[in-house]
Amino acid sequence: MRVLGVDPGLTRCGVGVVEGVAGRPLTMLGVGVVRTPADAELGHRLVAIERGIEEWLDEHRPEFVAVERVFSQHNVRTVMGTAQASAVAMLCASRRGIPVALHTPSEVKAAVTGSGRADKAQVGAMVTRLLRLDAPPKPADAADALALAICHIWRAPAVNRLQQAHAAAAAARTPRVPRTPAVPVRKVPR
Amino acid sequence: MRVLGVDPGLTRCGVGVVEGVAGRPLTMLGVGVVRTPADAELGHRLVAIERGIEEWLDEHRPEFVAVERVFSQHNVRTVMGTAQASAVAMLCASRRGIPVALHTPSEVKAAVTGSGRADKAQVGAMVTRLLRLDAPPKPADAADALALAICHIWRAPAVNRLQQAHAAAAAARTPRVPRTPAVPVRKVPR
Repeated sequence: MRVLGVDPGLTRCGVGVVEGVAGRPLTMLGVGVVRTPADAELGHRLVAIERGIEEWLDEHRPEFVAVERVFSQHNVRTVMGTAQASAVAMLCASRRGIPVALHTPSEVKAAVTGSGRADKAQVGAMVTRLLRLDAPPKPADAADALALAICHIWRAPAVNRLQQAHAAAAAARTPRVPRTPAVPVRKVPR
Repeated sequence: MRVLGVDPGLTRCGVGVVEGVAGRPLTMLGVGVVRTPADAELGHRLVAIERGIEEWLDEHRPEFVAVERVFSQHNVRTVMGTAQASAVAMLCASRRGIPVALHTPSEVKAAVTGSGRADKAQVGAMVTRLLRLDAPPKPADAADALALAICHIWRAPAVNRLQQAHAAAAAARTPRVPRTPAVPVRKVPR
């Protein structure tokens, strides 16, 4: 399984590609950061992020893209930019038919360190160990992107079972009733 | 001046094209809504919005795209989706080299009704009057997109003067020093 992890951001968008399966040693295929200048217009920054992500998809042909799920409890301005950068990453992947998975920061931390409240240094140290690197990848956004990819590889079996269960449940609901019926639906007593 | 207004949203993304100049009667060239199903995957919804916006750009060839500036003081979940839909609209425009302008909801309301705190009905009524329509465009997202386009046409002269002043001020700052010089820059006394 080859996964591109994306830690979205307008100024620094971390990207990292990891290959492997759960329970076996993992391999890093690439890591980096897509940067855009803070003084550029927002539209141009989004175009630059799109170009950067496309290059990573072209070069590594991942089977999955794992993106950090954005929450808005943090700094308001940063979060809007993060949401917009993540939209571009998801768009690039979905346009190619590559499945996108979202993982929360605490899911990622828990996956690689065992604790959902681990700090940046701990995540960097575990990424270094798990991928057998000489030093933690810099900046932290790059390490976080690798952690996302690792998290996806390890969580994928469980997530896939869940999706299969959902799909089976949805298929069992027959016939499918439209959400807003044109004619009022009356309950008929059995 | 031909402007595509975009009221961003994942479920309903309002789009409206208005042509005209400040101080003359305006003409509506088109109005509509790009919809995506709420139960679809986020990445697929963003692809559908991209496709919708591209169709509007292809058909109307606007010179400007005016997008509602997203704030996060509202409902948290809605805002993230709005930010992501707006990112797609800005990306589509910037990729074609079309300038993107952001206007806040209160700027738009003030432009078309005279009050930054006008309600939806008031905005709809003024859009109907200004574009000489038979009835207010439905849903409200479509009317809001037209209001954005009108706002841009009316504010553009002022905004352009401001941008020219900024550009002139930036050009006056010579020589331009890189943000992170490789060699420390020393201040030389005159």
